[in-house]
Amino acid sequence: MKEVRRFTQTRGPPGLAPSPTNQALKRSLASGINGGQHPNHTQRVKSTSYLPWVATIGLGGSIVWTMYPPQQGAKVVQERKTLVVLGTGWGSISFLSKLDKEQYEVIVVSPHNYFLFTPLLPSCTTGLISPRSLMEPVRSFLGQNPDAIKFYEAEAVKVDYNRRVVHIQYRSGAHCQEGQAEVPFDLLVMGVGADNATFNIPGVNEHACFLKSVSDAQTVQNHIIDCIEMTLVKEKSQEDLQRLSQIVIVGGGPTGVEVAAELQDFFHDDLKKQVPCMKNEFQITIVEALPNVLPMLSKPLSDYTEAKLKEQSIRVLTKTAVKRVNKDSVEVETINLDGQKELKIIPYGLLVWATGNKPREIVQGLAAQLPEQKDLRRGLVVNEYLAVKGSHNVWALGDCANSNLPPTAQVAAQQGAYLAMAFNSMAEAELGGTPDIQPFQYSHQGTLAYIGGELAVADLELLGNSIPTRGFFTYLFWKAAYLNMCLTGRSRVLVATDWTKATLFGRHLCRQ
Amino acid sequence: MKEVRRFTQTRGPPGLAPSPTNQALKRSLASGINGGQHPNHTQRVKSTSYLPWVATIGLGGSIVWTMYPPQQGAKVVQERKTLVVLGTGWGSISFLSKLDKEQYEVIVVSPHNYFLFTPLLPSCTTGLISPRSLMEPVRSFLGQNPDAIKFYEAEAVKVDYNRRVVHIQYRSGAHCQEGQAEVPFDLLVMGVGADNATFNIPGVNEHACFLKSVSDAQTVQNHIIDCIEMTLVKEKSQEDLQRLSQIVIVGGGPTGVEVAAELQDFFHDDLKKQVPCMKNEFQITIVEALPNVLPMLSKPLSDYTEAKLKEQSIRVLTKTAVKRVNKDSVEVETINLDGQKELKIIPYGLLVWATGNKPREIVQGLAAQLPEQKDLRRGLVVNEYLAVKGSHNVWALGDCANSNLPPTAQVAAQQGAYLAMAFNSMAEAELGGTPDIQPFQYSHQGTLAYIGGELAVADLELLGNSIPTRGFFTYLFWKAAYLNMCLTGRSRVLVATDWTKATLFGRHLCRQ
Repeated sequence: MKEVRRFTQTRGPPGLAPSPTNQALKRSLASGINGGQHPNHTQRVKSTSYLPWVATIGLGGSIVWTMYPPQQGAKVVQERKTLVVLGTGWGSISFLSKLDKEQYEVIVVSPHNYFLFTPLLPSCTTGLISPRSLMEPVRSFLGQNPDAIKFYEAEAVKVDYNRRVVHIQYRSGAHCQEGQAEVPFDLLVMGVGADNATFNIPGVNEHACFLKSVSDAQTVQNHIIDCIEMTLVKEKSQEDLQRLSQIVIVGGGPTGVEVAAELQDFFHDDLKKQVPCMKNEFQITIVEALPNVLPMLSKPLSDYTEAKLKEQSIRVLTKTAVKRVNKDSVEVETINLDGQKELKIIPYGLLVWATGNKPREIVQGLAAQLPEQKDLRRGLVVNEYLAVKGSHNVWALGDCANSNLPPTAQVAAQQGAYLAMAFNSMAEAELGGTPDIQPFQYSHQGTLAYIGGELAVADLELLGNSIPTRGFFTYLFWKAAYLNMCLTGRSRVLVATDWTKATLFGRHLCRQ
Repeated sequence: MKEVRRFTQTRGPPGLAPSPTNQALKRSLASGINGGQHPNHTQRVKSTSYLPWVATIGLGGSIVWTMYPPQQGAKVVQERKTLVVLGTGWGSISFLSKLDKEQYEVIVVSPHNYFLFTPLLPSCTTGLISPRSLMEPVRSFLGQNPDAIKFYEAEAVKVDYNRRVVHIQYRSGAHCQEGQAEVPFDLLVMGVGADNATFNIPGVNEHACFLKSVSDAQTVQNHIIDCIEMTLVKEKSQEDLQRLSQIVIVGGGPTGVEVAAELQDFFHDDLKKQVPCMKNEFQITIVEALPNVLPMLSKPLSDYTEAKLKEQSIRVLTKTAVKRVNKDSVEVETINLDGQKELKIIPYGLLVWATGNKPREIVQGLAAQLPEQKDLRRGLVVNEYLAVKGSHNVWALGDCANSNLPPTAQVAAQQGAYLAMAFNSMAEAELGGTPDIQPFQYSHQGTLAYIGGELAVADLELLGNSIPTRGFFTYLFWKAAYLNMCLTGRSRVLVATDWTKATLFGRHLCRQ
């Protein structure tokens, strides 16, 4: 333990006198934070570019990067410390990609042996994109040295902070009994993501669909197909028919809006073609507690989004809070124009819940062991170096960290890249260099969302100013930017192929 | 009921004096049986062709056919009878594609709202082909008239023959309670396929994986990934490691051999690349009770297959019967060279069971109501017109019918096409024509199987002679023939795209 403490204490305070090494380090860290060296590690878009061709150049560049990755440090720390990384989401994968893996005994633990490109998950709900196109085997990011890094396909269930041990549980696959094991660590990076926030509203967990994983997307797709097929199996009451064609989406953030947009596109473009006997019209309703959808965008863009959603016959209920979810209806309280509250009951065939995050159990468990983490609302509170406050050897990234930043892929990816640079710098310090680690600075690149009907909205950051754009060209840019954001050339080709397939043959309507 | 009987009695005996109409009918029926008009309704290959370019021309032809389907009868029977079709496999879909749907009130019942291209299912176990590429929405085959035909996504659980009613059970999707309903019929076509034969061997249902459906293929894939990942999660005993890398495939028919071939290709081509730290070698064992694998092929081809499988390190145990399946081992009885029986225990990480068919429950239930169907070993015994013996208004197709033909897609597709022609002819008779329905004649086009390492074997039928071919060019032909066999242009493009993707990026190794 002593060694571990010594190691973590080498993190230098900000504002160290610059030496030549430090300046180089600074440059490297800064470029890491801005995603400059590796353009595909930022979630949203480049601040210096907002035209599709720039994204295309970026695409080419990152393919070259993928083919010829920069050489990593040749010198190796003598006594390598065990670095355990939990999770394979944006934060962890960004961290692992940039980490000098020769300097640590790295063990990655995750229930998924793949990285999932979450921004396009809404497109999987209609079969526009195959989930496989968004899944990249985790070993693509672990390097080719088979002994440098270990991956355990297992769920991390508990961190025992005092014993410096992670309890993992592997599944009972291949006729192995479900088993538990302990993974000791010297250093721990938490990138476990978050659970769905349900705000203790009764019935949500029992009846709603979520949208965080591949199986969630598959469940939503199957539910839609069920809604369609159930209206056609034998005669139904008018009430049942109406209910089955109601889709309620709770949460007017990017996920909620994009799911609504993708579903409406599907109903508009493909349903009648594929199921000519379908008489019912599907009605999508977005329920949002705040006064606007996409509240993170500037007001004109929010208003534009709401108007365009309504043009597509999507009902938008703002200032409306869900009170209870029943098996086939949702009870909401809406604030009328005259300021009066009104209770409404909306029947539904499918309910998608996309309202935000709450800390996972493992995060709650770790927080309970650290006195500084008593107020665990959004995640593990981290300092400006992403170290978990009150701990000496634990860092947190992405949705499981509370750094007063939005829980987006963009933030997680930048944090991962930053932390990798910090770890590389610490290893260099072990080898005799002087560490100079600046605090993490988030560089917001902008926000993009698809709003249906081949329209998108974007607030792009250019030289510190926010530039709102919208419409069809923003949609093309959205596509180019998302392609560019994919972490591998393989993913890019597969996503582009899926888009082409959908253009040629329509979306897929088979229940898996 | 009287009307129904009258209707079914219009089926004329063979050898009716030929009128001009009858001659045309004969030609049309004959071409239907041989699959001549619609080249993609035969499972295996054209008897007059065994070169890839012929398949390519066929491919072009069938795309044209898909784009410009022949016009169907303009006259319509006044009082349309309710024709219920159970299943959406090869037999039913072939039947529905060729049926003049205007002449009947058609109701299709199946738990799957898609047709599955089963011959390529073994390729799904390694992620070489995405299941979605093999699934074609059932409505692609139902025509564009929304009122001509109904599809119910439901499981047909029982046929009440006396009441002329099918009991269906629809799933509890979209918050609908699981429900039962009755579907009355005048005419019934059974195309429900078959269950997996387990020969009452203890433990098979509990521990083995099968390969009949998309979810089966997904399960096999997940099990393989589990076997790989479990060997890497923490330290395992040598015994466990050895067991996890043993894959046992029971059944040396085309399915068993093709699964073995696909898995071995995956282990050989992709595993080491994707999981560099994988130290174990996977060992595949095929267990077959008969003296040869692929016993339907000529002896030299069987021997060639066995030799090539062994060259690829696949162990082939012929004359070996499974006695019991345990959770992690299978007990077999093998006949040694000296004729002595020997009991062996083979540990396994994954067990795939591909030994053949047994009748489904609904088939057993129907047979119990018909005195002529007491001996139900392989399926409903049908006469030469595919009518279920002892019934007056029920026909059976494909794997659920016992017509002394092998349970292949080729047979089912030809039966479906034949029966559609017969039904069209019956409808014409209702309109005043004279029906002339010849007995069903199966025209065997040959048998193809992929045996791994880019090699395939084929027994092709040419002018009544069987021509054995094998090797790399047969593999190319296998690919071209399978592409040609796909029922839609969409499927062809998707399968070809999947093959290209796998060539570019390797097979997919993410656990869904």
